[in-house]
Amino acid sequence: MVKIAQVGAGRMGELHARNATANPRLELTWIVDNDVTRAAALAVRHGARVATFEQILADHEVKGVVLATSTDALLETGLACLRTGKAVFSEKPLSLSLEALESADLLSDPAAPPLFVAFNRRFDPHFTALKGRLDAGEIGALETLHLINHDPEPPSRDFIPRSGGLFKDFTIHDFDTAAWFLDEPVRELFAWASRLVDPSIDALGDVDTAKLILKTRSGKLCMISNSRRTGYGYDQRIEAFGSAGALRVDNVQANAVSRWSEAGMLGSTFHYAFPDRYAEAYRLELDHFADILLNGQKPRTGYRSATDALRLAEAAAESVRKERAIILFVEESGNA
Amino acid sequence: MVKIAQVGAGRMGELHARNATANPRLELTWIVDNDVTRAAALAVRHGARVATFEQILADHEVKGVVLATSTDALLETGLACLRTGKAVFSEKPLSLSLEALESADLLSDPAAPPLFVAFNRRFDPHFTALKGRLDAGEIGALETLHLINHDPEPPSRDFIPRSGGLFKDFTIHDFDTAAWFLDEPVRELFAWASRLVDPSIDALGDVDTAKLILKTRSGKLCMISNSRRTGYGYDQRIEAFGSAGALRVDNVQANAVSRWSEAGMLGSTFHYAFPDRYAEAYRLELDHFADILLNGQKPRTGYRSATDALRLAEAAAESVRKERAIILFVEESGNA
Amino acid sequence: MVKIAQVGAGRMGELHARNATANPRLELTWIVDNDVTRAAALAVRHGARVATFEQILADHEVKGVVLATSTDALLETGLACLRTGKAVFSEKPLSLSLEALESADLLSDPAAPPLFVAFNRRFDPHFTALKGRLDAGEIGALETLHLINHDPEPPSRDFIPRSGGLFKDFTIHDFDTAAWFLDEPVRELFAWASRLVDPSIDALGDVDTAKLILKTRSGKLCMISNSRRTGYGYDQRIEAFGSAGALRVDNVQANAVSRWSEAGMLGSTFHYAFPDRYAEAYRLELDHFADILLNGQKPRTGYRSATDALRLAEAAAESVRKERAIILFVEESGNA
Amino acid sequence: MVKIAQVGAGRMGELHARNATANPRLELTWIVDNDVTRAAALAVRHGARVATFEQILADHEVKGVVLATSTDALLETGLACLRTGKAVFSEKPLSLSLEALESADLLSDPAAPPLFVAFNRRFDPHFTALKGRLDAGEIGALETLHLINHDPEPPSRDFIPRSGGLFKDFTIHDFDTAAWFLDEPVRELFAWASRLVDPSIDALGDVDTAKLILKTRSGKLCMISNSRRTGYGYDQRIEAFGSAGALRVDNVQANAVSRWSEAGMLGSTFHYAFPDRYAEAYRLELDHFADILLNGQKPRTGYRSATDALRLAEAAAESVRKERAIILFVEESGNA
Repeated sequence: MVKIAQVGAGRMGELHARNATANPRLELTWIVDNDVTRAAALAVRHGARVATFEQILADHEVKGVVLATSTDALLETGLACLRTGKAVFSEKPLSLSLEALESADLLSDPAAPPLFVAFNRRFDPHFTALKGRLDAGEIGALETLHLINHDPEPPSRDFIPRSGGLFKDFTIHDFDTAAWFLDEPVRELFAWASRLVDPSIDALGDVDTAKLILKTRSGKLCMISNSRRTGYGYDQRIEAFGSAGALRVDNVQANAVSRWSEAGMLGSTFHYAFPDRYAEAYRLELDHFADILLNGQKPRTGYRSATDALRLAEAAAESVRKERAIILFVEESGNA
Repeated sequence: MVKIAQVGAGRMGELHARNATANPRLELTWIVDNDVTRAAALAVRHGARVATFEQILADHEVKGVVLATSTDALLETGLACLRTGKAVFSEKPLSLSLEALESADLLSDPAAPPLFVAFNRRFDPHFTALKGRLDAGEIGALETLHLINHDPEPPSRDFIPRSGGLFKDFTIHDFDTAAWFLDEPVRELFAWASRLVDPSIDALGDVDTAKLILKTRSGKLCMISNSRRTGYGYDQRIEAFGSAGALRVDNVQANAVSRWSEAGMLGSTFHYAFPDRYAEAYRLELDHFADILLNGQKPRTGYRSATDALRLAEAAAESVRKERAIILFVEESGNA
Repeated sequence: MVKIAQVGAGRMGELHARNATANPRLELTWIVDNDVTRAAALAVRHGARVATFEQILADHEVKGVVLATSTDALLETGLACLRTGKAVFSEKPLSLSLEALESADLLSDPAAPPLFVAFNRRFDPHFTALKGRLDAGEIGALETLHLINHDPEPPSRDFIPRSGGLFKDFTIHDFDTAAWFLDEPVRELFAWASRLVDPSIDALGDVDTAKLILKTRSGKLCMISNSRRTGYGYDQRIEAFGSAGALRVDNVQANAVSRWSEAGMLGSTFHYAFPDRYAEAYRLELDHFADILLNGQKPRTGYRSATDALRLAEAAAESVRKERAIILFVEESGNA
Repeated sequence: MVKIAQVGAGRMGELHARNATANPRLELTWIVDNDVTRAAALAVRHGARVATFEQILADHEVKGVVLATSTDALLETGLACLRTGKAVFSEKPLSLSLEALESADLLSDPAAPPLFVAFNRRFDPHFTALKGRLDAGEIGALETLHLINHDPEPPSRDFIPRSGGLFKDFTIHDFDTAAWFLDEPVRELFAWASRLVDPSIDALGDVDTAKLILKTRSGKLCMISNSRRTGYGYDQRIEAFGSAGALRVDNVQANAVSRWSEAGMLGSTFHYAFPDRYAEAYRLELDHFADILLNGQKPRTGYRSATDALRLAEAAAESVRKERAIILFVEESGNA
């Protein structure tokens, strides 16, 4: 077993603390949060104790730190942990500023402790099963990809101004998923966004509906669909079209019960939002962190994934403004 | 093209007349019905003329007769047609009396004109596809079979006393389907029935709910489920369990539209009853009759199928009365 | 009954002739085709006779003409029919040239005989059921739309140079479907295309894979996905996302048979291509033409639909070239 | 937390020990097994220690005992625990002898410690969801029930002679599930069984395939289908038909990935057998035991459920022998 600490006792913090406690390889020792009452409540539930951030930095027995703070504190907190030799598990996005990420040399320093930026889709058993079958060649060469990522409802109006906007807060998952599946850098991107759900989102300078197209060097196309409203729960699907067929992840149903009535066949509801839909992914993220700490595994997603996704998010915003495709990089001559 | 006549202008008569007219190989010339107004109305719609039964028997150009009369008239009418050399297409069941069927020598006379007793399930594209794949060995040897046959609502109270009861009127389809799929004679049968839907059915001496088990010589088991009420339309399913997997026919949906809402996934409705669910089967029945008349094809189901199914229906009634398995035949010694 | 003639005896001609013959309100009298042998073969099968185009123009009993010629002959032939007072049923696209369409005044003359440009999706029972439920408010206000339209294999290499390219030949269906569902003009469009299926398509100046986004004045977004290869048949789906849920048309399965094996649940195949998938739509198109001829119904899609779709096809090609969104029209001031 | 011990370190013992360890309310202290090496291995994995049965009886801190022994030891071991005041969690069937059960007065003594006989179907989230919706009246009054319970492969040939036969070993689950859903005593039962899977099962005096019908006083009918071979994994389904519709539990799929290919739509595999399919049920069983121990909850299934199910299993064997319906109880006069 290895000792870890956690910074952040909010909703994501509760979720990670529960998984850390249930993981037989991790021992959650300290909880840090500005709201000490909240920290104490969470600590009690999981047999941990409250600490200040400085205390955990000073505790040499703590080998890894789980960061579940608000986005604006992730980067600074993470860097402090890395500097004291502790491995970091950070929520996404590591930062809203590409410049800040790129200027923090430690993040990409091969000698630094491991930094794991937790993109939950990478750990979802359905998505990883699809990826495995794609890599095994079940549908030949991948040609195009559809990522459907619709939230059941908008985030709280308080959160929106600090969220970085739809692309950095929400589409960031799809940018990373696209990178994972396309297996080739995205060279260009086009995005359109609308504000259809709630006028107050407009006033906050954000959008709630978007369609994007990504294009790779070899011409593979990836469509991303985002919405902040569904009327039916959390819509999380992938369709991968290859030269010899298609592989799909459908929405996961809450159970296997259905009803037949005059209205037709009524199947189960879907999961309403991420805590249910990605419950297993969150468990596996923590387990991956245990592998990083105990077995020297390399983080599956770190600095590179975080910056790649953020770069696409910035390009998407630029594309919406300019109504044109944004080129992410120019091929060197001779390469085309 | 070959000329045919039709006896019966009720609901099934309308259905067959429509299919006969649309069939490029059949020319529907005469319609016979005790209710002359009804006969005339149907004849006008399909470019045919009204006749008496004697007139069609005397018309040498009429090579085949479609019988869509009430059950009690089918056998006598059919025999008269056969005696004048005309092929017969008869609705099921040919008779409610096994004795009457067995004493009509002409029915099993190989020199008689062809007699086709139309069991619609044999012509359903879904069921025939399953049968073809079963015969092709897709699931190894058939072990057990489930036939689900539920009507959306009971027949009219007027019809019940003349129907022969649930087993002869409704389960008769399943007895024939079982014979078709099991490919081996049914040696024993057990049946239980209840009256759960409407007390007035009790008063008429009938039941509305039944479960039956059929057993063949080699031990294959077939479960039949019947109900006169569903709340969701017509339930017509088959599950065939083999030594290497299962083949199933699910209920056919009215269309491919579904809705996702807070209540879950709402698929299409099912077909409500036989005219919709077996529309294609009825077309193919008439087409099979054209093949019998024009190409000398042997009827897929005739005297033998009709008596086999009726024998099972009588055994089912006996089983309900005695609460024990009924043996259909005793193996000759040395055969077991 | 009303007399009609048909120009074109190729694949689509055979399909329409079959449906015209089966339609009790239409009498197919003449078949015209440059290839007289082909015309004669089709005429014989359907009880019609061979004629020259001039002969049918001169026949005052012919009230309507079905055009199933190659695309380059549709417009001229159609105009000739209209000039002689005959209603026209034309295959899509009426022309590859927007300019040609716009300069033919007769097409938009309210006093001219009716012109029906047959977009098959508008007559598909699955799509019309979805549209009816959308209009009935089942999912609130429509926000975004996904149209998936993938062909199982590319058209013949001979046809490609005369096809007008992917957008005018194939995506044209989606442009019309989008117009039908969005219920609001498309103001802007972005398209990306690739050539992934077969290098020989490149040499012919065409593409085989595309993703497009359409945007209406109020911000509704429509994604269109096209491919000339699937590995699993014809992919024809719609997903409509509204403020209170989603409505979907899934791929239609060939039958209701499924198999359970070690590999999992194997459902039915899909229809392979348009003749099977849209068989019912083609029947209903002819029936709509009968309504136009006999009951004075207005064509559901005519000059306006044809030009609107073609305009989007030209904009799509321009968008691919310029890698930017193309504005279809500028709102008049005060309208926004 | 409450201290428990476990007798049995075989396959089911491993499963229960894992769940006991993960349950925050249970502390697994002792493992007993005749095979001391096996007991030690399991104890080490779960932070428990090896004991003799006498030792745990003597340990007053142990409040409950989980019995995962072979069937022939369950009853005697359980009685010994109850006599020393310990609550019992027993695997099913508590005994193969109805007489033995009925003669052990302590089992039905209301003053005895609680006895929980763990029927896993009662704790399956899918089945309990169906039961809840049935009780809420979603489909009106229950009329008939189909229980499909097919094992992927026969048990080991060693186990069969001690298993009590198909009905006591396997159908016992369905007998209890039927009792749970029918909410009315089963008055009569008919069963047919075959030996179709493997001739060696015949030699061991057992069968591998069965269909049963159960009938309640009010005429509700329940069909049970059993097989020891599927070719596709574990088949665990329920269909409940009511006066106003049907509720169903379909087989649970391993994940939400599907493939579209020339062969059609290939969905996920099913779970192969009980450890996967009922993983959650086993966790909830242990949690129910914690509620019994800590909160004074009454066992959901105990002596009564165990004897009721065993009585049906004996009747089923008798029915197969006599080929007739077996009456479980005769209504008292005036009760009908």
